[in-house]
Amino acid sequence: MDLAARIRDRQGSFVLFALTPPRQSTAPERVAEIAEATKARLRPLGLDGLVLYDIDDESSRNPTERPFPFTPTLDPAAYLAEDLTDWETPVVVYRAVGKYERPTLEGWAGAQDPGRTLSVLVGAASSDSKPALTLAEAQQLAGAANPDLLLGGVAIPERHTRRGNEHERLLAKQAAGCRFFVTQVVYDVNAAKNLVSDYAYACREAGIAPVPIVFTFSVCGSMKTLEFLRWLGVDVPRWIENDLRHAEDTLQASFEQALATATELVAYCERLGVPFGLNIESVSIRKVEIDASVELARRLIGTLRGTTAPA
Amino acid sequence: MDLAARIRDRQGSFVLFALTPPRQSTAPERVAEIAEATKARLRPLGLDGLVLYDIDDESSRNPTERPFPFTPTLDPAAYLAEDLTDWETPVVVYRAVGKYERPTLEGWAGAQDPGRTLSVLVGAASSDSKPALTLAEAQQLAGAANPDLLLGGVAIPERHTRRGNEHERLLAKQAAGCRFFVTQVVYDVNAAKNLVSDYAYACREAGIAPVPIVFTFSVCGSMKTLEFLRWLGVDVPRWIENDLRHAEDTLQASFEQALATATELVAYCERLGVPFGLNIESVSIRKVEIDASVELARRLIGTLRGTTAPA
Repeated sequence: MDLAARIRDRQGSFVLFALTPPRQSTAPERVAEIAEATKARLRPLGLDGLVLYDIDDESSRNPTERPFPFTPTLDPAAYLAEDLTDWETPVVVYRAVGKYERPTLEGWAGAQDPGRTLSVLVGAASSDSKPALTLAEAQQLAGAANPDLLLGGVAIPERHTRRGNEHERLLAKQAAGCRFFVTQVVYDVNAAKNLVSDYAYACREAGIAPVPIVFTFSVCGSMKTLEFLRWLGVDVPRWIENDLRHAEDTLQASFEQALATATELVAYCERLGVPFGLNIESVSIRKVEIDASVELARRLIGTLRGTTAPA
Repeated sequence: MDLAARIRDRQGSFVLFALTPPRQSTAPERVAEIAEATKARLRPLGLDGLVLYDIDDESSRNPTERPFPFTPTLDPAAYLAEDLTDWETPVVVYRAVGKYERPTLEGWAGAQDPGRTLSVLVGAASSDSKPALTLAEAQQLAGAANPDLLLGGVAIPERHTRRGNEHERLLAKQAAGCRFFVTQVVYDVNAAKNLVSDYAYACREAGIAPVPIVFTFSVCGSMKTLEFLRWLGVDVPRWIENDLRHAEDTLQASFEQALATATELVAYCERLGVPFGLNIESVSIRKVEIDASVELARRLIGTLRGTTAPA
């Protein structure tokens, strides 16, 4: 059963790999090369889908200096249309709604094949910014332009830790048409369990079936990457930071950490009856960290399907 | 190897069971009966030691209404001397130092056999209260009166969550003579791991060997008991509260939860090289909850020693 069907049926148990499109400054022929290399490398994994991020300069959200400089990246919808048309699985395209005018988003949503493209609409990074389109407007617009298009939203366990009402936000987004949620990178398994738990029991109380929650994981190969994770808003527990800082092999320690966290969340969701997905990315562009994230996806697919694909 | 030797050698891997002495209002012959029944029930477990709490009316620490009324209990030192002399293992006697005058504590410490009695000195419940003796004074006094007496201190992961410096407090207490630490009841495994991790790396940096950290566990059979745990200052994560609230059998769910938490902490301490102990109590006086705590101790002893004693 493919990704769109699994989400429509609220089945979950799928594994995605998330990519950031190449930089805008990349020459077109080099973009095509990158896309070919990426597809060649990811095909053997047997992924259920890809995720394409839409990177916004989040300096409005976080005034502290970005550990890695911001470089504008290609529009993920354009990257999909031009370079990933022969990719075999459905693709989840992020749309930072503040970046687009109404007709652009409407036209794009209307033109998508709902069996091939899904979309996660993301609000403006800071409530201070005045976006062209609000998240609620964008969701309504996309839904009207293409009623079969599966729309997702973001879920942030860290916000639940601070405010305690993220599960209510998820229910409100679900009422507005969201069919799945994707978290930011998870390092604090307790925060993720708190959110899933509150969401599950709120659904039960409201007589609503929970939709898949997709947990995102990334390895971390250096203290610089850890600093970037924190900058992105990821809560990294002290003990994990200490373990990574003092590990002989930080990347390997982080790999095992991510695997353990994912395994714990899968078991927890299965016990609670909440459908789930797993999404693997590398927040770093260093080759060793990307390699480790690919290996993490391979291992998690093996775990979920009860088999381990050959390395 | 017995408890005192394990602590002196910084070995850990022991299991204790904690008791609150009977109420002061209990008739002496009934106190003796309770003691006999307790010993008969705990003997088959093969515990490494007992812990006797010294209950203080903590209303100065927490102004919200106590879910269970406070009733003064017997002095644990008197209970030990009068009713537990034939108990086979060493006993860790708590002393709420604010309750005692200098000569009382000095005389008691001087009279103890260090192979049979250990002591945890506990400071006043609130920094507003003016105790007869401060914790530092009491520690110095007890150490001078009986240099071989093994003294312990309390470790509070929840305080580490709030202030981030509990590991420094542990190092300072250790420098002042503490040879082991006992936590309050642990429900937030992440908070406990954060404290152990910061403590372990601070010891490594200072070139000091870590002393055993004793983690305390209690089952919770009802929402009333959960409320009491919270009143005592225990952080119970949302997801655990939800699971217990919605469980068909709250006590059984809590039992499995405590077992999983203890097992995770044991594995984590072993990996970090921090000696540990386990301490089981029942914060509730309901018989089913006490029974489950005894069973929890039995299971944990089986796990630590690689065998499961017959039920």
